[in-house]
Amino acid sequence: MNVVRFIEAKRDGRAHTKEELAEFCRLVGQSAIPDYQVSAWLMAAFLNPLSDEEAAWLTEGMADSGERLDLSGLPEPWVDKHSTGGVGDKTTLVVVPMLAACGLTIVKMSGRGLGITGGTIDKLESVPGFRTDLSPAELKAQAMAVGIGLGGQTANLAPADKHLYALRDVTGTTASMPLMASSILSKKLAGGAKYVVLDVKAGRGAFMTTEEGARELAKLLVRIGEGAGLHTSALISDMDVPLGSAVGNAVEVREAWDVLTGREQDGPVKRFRELCVALTAHVLTVVGEAPETAMKRAQTCLTSGMAWEKAERWLIAQGAERHLILPVAPTVLTVTGTESGWVGDIHPVQISQLVLDLGGGRKTKTDQIDHRVGVELLVSVGDQVESGQPLLRIHAASESAAEEMVGRALGAITISPSPVPAREVIRSS
Amino acid sequence: MNVVRFIEAKRDGRAHTKEELAEFCRLVGQSAIPDYQVSAWLMAAFLNPLSDEEAAWLTEGMADSGERLDLSGLPEPWVDKHSTGGVGDKTTLVVVPMLAACGLTIVKMSGRGLGITGGTIDKLESVPGFRTDLSPAELKAQAMAVGIGLGGQTANLAPADKHLYALRDVTGTTASMPLMASSILSKKLAGGAKYVVLDVKAGRGAFMTTEEGARELAKLLVRIGEGAGLHTSALISDMDVPLGSAVGNAVEVREAWDVLTGREQDGPVKRFRELCVALTAHVLTVVGEAPETAMKRAQTCLTSGMAWEKAERWLIAQGAERHLILPVAPTVLTVTGTESGWVGDIHPVQISQLVLDLGGGRKTKTDQIDHRVGVELLVSVGDQVESGQPLLRIHAASESAAEEMVGRALGAITISPSPVPAREVIRSS
Repeated sequence: MNVVRFIEAKRDGRAHTKEELAEFCRLVGQSAIPDYQVSAWLMAAFLNPLSDEEAAWLTEGMADSGERLDLSGLPEPWVDKHSTGGVGDKTTLVVVPMLAACGLTIVKMSGRGLGITGGTIDKLESVPGFRTDLSPAELKAQAMAVGIGLGGQTANLAPADKHLYALRDVTGTTASMPLMASSILSKKLAGGAKYVVLDVKAGRGAFMTTEEGARELAKLLVRIGEGAGLHTSALISDMDVPLGSAVGNAVEVREAWDVLTGREQDGPVKRFRELCVALTAHVLTVVGEAPETAMKRAQTCLTSGMAWEKAERWLIAQGAERHLILPVAPTVLTVTGTESGWVGDIHPVQISQLVLDLGGGRKTKTDQIDHRVGVELLVSVGDQVESGQPLLRIHAASESAAEEMVGRALGAITISPSPVPAREVIRSS
Repeated sequence: MNVVRFIEAKRDGRAHTKEELAEFCRLVGQSAIPDYQVSAWLMAAFLNPLSDEEAAWLTEGMADSGERLDLSGLPEPWVDKHSTGGVGDKTTLVVVPMLAACGLTIVKMSGRGLGITGGTIDKLESVPGFRTDLSPAELKAQAMAVGIGLGGQTANLAPADKHLYALRDVTGTTASMPLMASSILSKKLAGGAKYVVLDVKAGRGAFMTTEEGARELAKLLVRIGEGAGLHTSALISDMDVPLGSAVGNAVEVREAWDVLTGREQDGPVKRFRELCVALTAHVLTVVGEAPETAMKRAQTCLTSGMAWEKAERWLIAQGAERHLILPVAPTVLTVTGTESGWVGDIHPVQISQLVLDLGGGRKTKTDQIDHRVGVELLVSVGDQVESGQPLLRIHAASESAAEEMVGRALGAITISPSPVPAREVIRSS
């Protein structure tokens, strides 16, 4: 292909054909186009955004640039779920066993975290013995045996997306909705899914800070996904405050297990549980169940203990040590409030930044994570609190590290002198 | 500097500061910014064009990214002349000796050709013995001695411009007027000029195909040049047909010498001579001469033989073999017309493409040029011609090569059944 002509077309706002985009992705996946040409195209596509049709073709092209996981042999429907990312978002750890308990077979590839956003794979690596490096064949075999196979993304999954994603990060072209949507969906397509349910986050802790923005992104994702041949649907959920109680790695896994076992039903975990049930019910309706029964089944799989049974079988099948004992931080410091009133706000970015500084996330791609550290919120927006009441716990590597964070932790929580309504976790679906 | 923030600013149409652009150019000149970031910025600057102020700062930044030629010690004014490029444009070969004959001291750096556009340095390399690799010190010493020093651009002249120029070529970002203007002017600034006269070409053989476009570019160049501290003025000349009679290398040098010696006064060479006189007079007025006397002096330096004397001294001082014998092509084929009427059109791109295919230009940067080959036009637009009358000569490396081109050569010339007016070479100044 004549790459300069291709760049010029997008520069001038002309549409690409499906064949051009397929060829471009094939070449990008092979690193056969110099980065300086790819990044010129990315900037042109940022400023003259791809149409839905082009974005769908880009999605397919990126999925086809490497191996595509072939799920044939596994019971259909082949469903995947994706969250656009936020603070304290551990829904995959709960929803996947719930879906398996409802009879679905799930093969899923998840990512790692960078900056203030955590990654499912990092969280699962808190579980001693758990393997995140299963090959596609191993993932399929395990899904056949226990209903779930969950792994990290292999190098050859949508390599064109990997390449474009890395370049976007360093060329100011990340925040393009069609490029973002194609990136998400290409990995789902390459992972073998036929149905995709998207949890699009809205709020200060999410890429889309407003509900309107999130709704726009959700609609775009659905249009592009459908264009690329995926049955796609989306749900908007709140990310203006952290999701649930825990932010970190082991602490989030603990919260997920608390929901699955039913050990913890109240406090901040309640909103998280509600989202997991809604997402599971949403997936079930997408694959054909009536909305009323779907909601009931989603709830029952938790209360009956079936989802936890699935989770245990899955985790142990995938290498986790029996008894599932999570690492704990050497210091757990309870922070109490100094004011009485109502919890008016919990700032998600301040909380996740704090966890990052405790060592719970990566500032650069090569950083090591301390899985033990994190923050555990004990209150939710709308709760009435008294001065001296515990508001959160800091899980840290040392006493001094915990104490250093007390001021910032308190600063992330606003106490209002007058009543504040609780926040709904589901914004629309 | 934070390069991603810098790219994002231009992506979002925000203005850069002088300091930012200086730092960017410094880093680009040192190849300290990855090409993929530079090209993302280029595309952003293409789609959100630089303001005049930014382009002037970019010009200065690029000039400062390497060594700047210091002309101190040479008599002022330090004048340079630049053409935006076209087919058969050998004005530098005539205007520089004319200016020297009028008492100016000229140090000038010129470029090579690529594609359908020729380069002064390539043309001069037709002259046996002529050296184009003079160091800055040698150029100055020679200008001091004989009034003229003309060399190729050294590696360290505006290296940031070299880098950006090379990237623009392969990322579809060439045709940005502010980037183009900055590129031209940065080399003039780095070359030590204080006065710059621009010959902006308009027509099918030029970058600007319309007169309005050329006028716009000329105005932009003047604004940016003045912003960068250069006394800048421009003249618009016709490039809708080839300039003068010759297109090639040795044949163009021959035509230039014909003008300087006065050997050839009529036919297609007349328009070329007219442009040389106008440009020389323009330069003289720019440095303070009254328009009426400037025109007279420009004409007199040709008719008196003084310009040719200067040219001879210069060429021999710069290594040319005495007697100045140019290489000739093994075959010179005269092509005659098959129709009677008036010459209605001579297509510049078709002619230059033909010369390129004869071997007279470079299709890629590493191609070797055959200096002997080219086309010599014997008629101009507006001339009345008879069937069987010679229209042009093809100078080729072999008889078969010449014969192969006859059809294309005739195809480049349109004969009209009714009278056609001659074309003015100067469009505005």
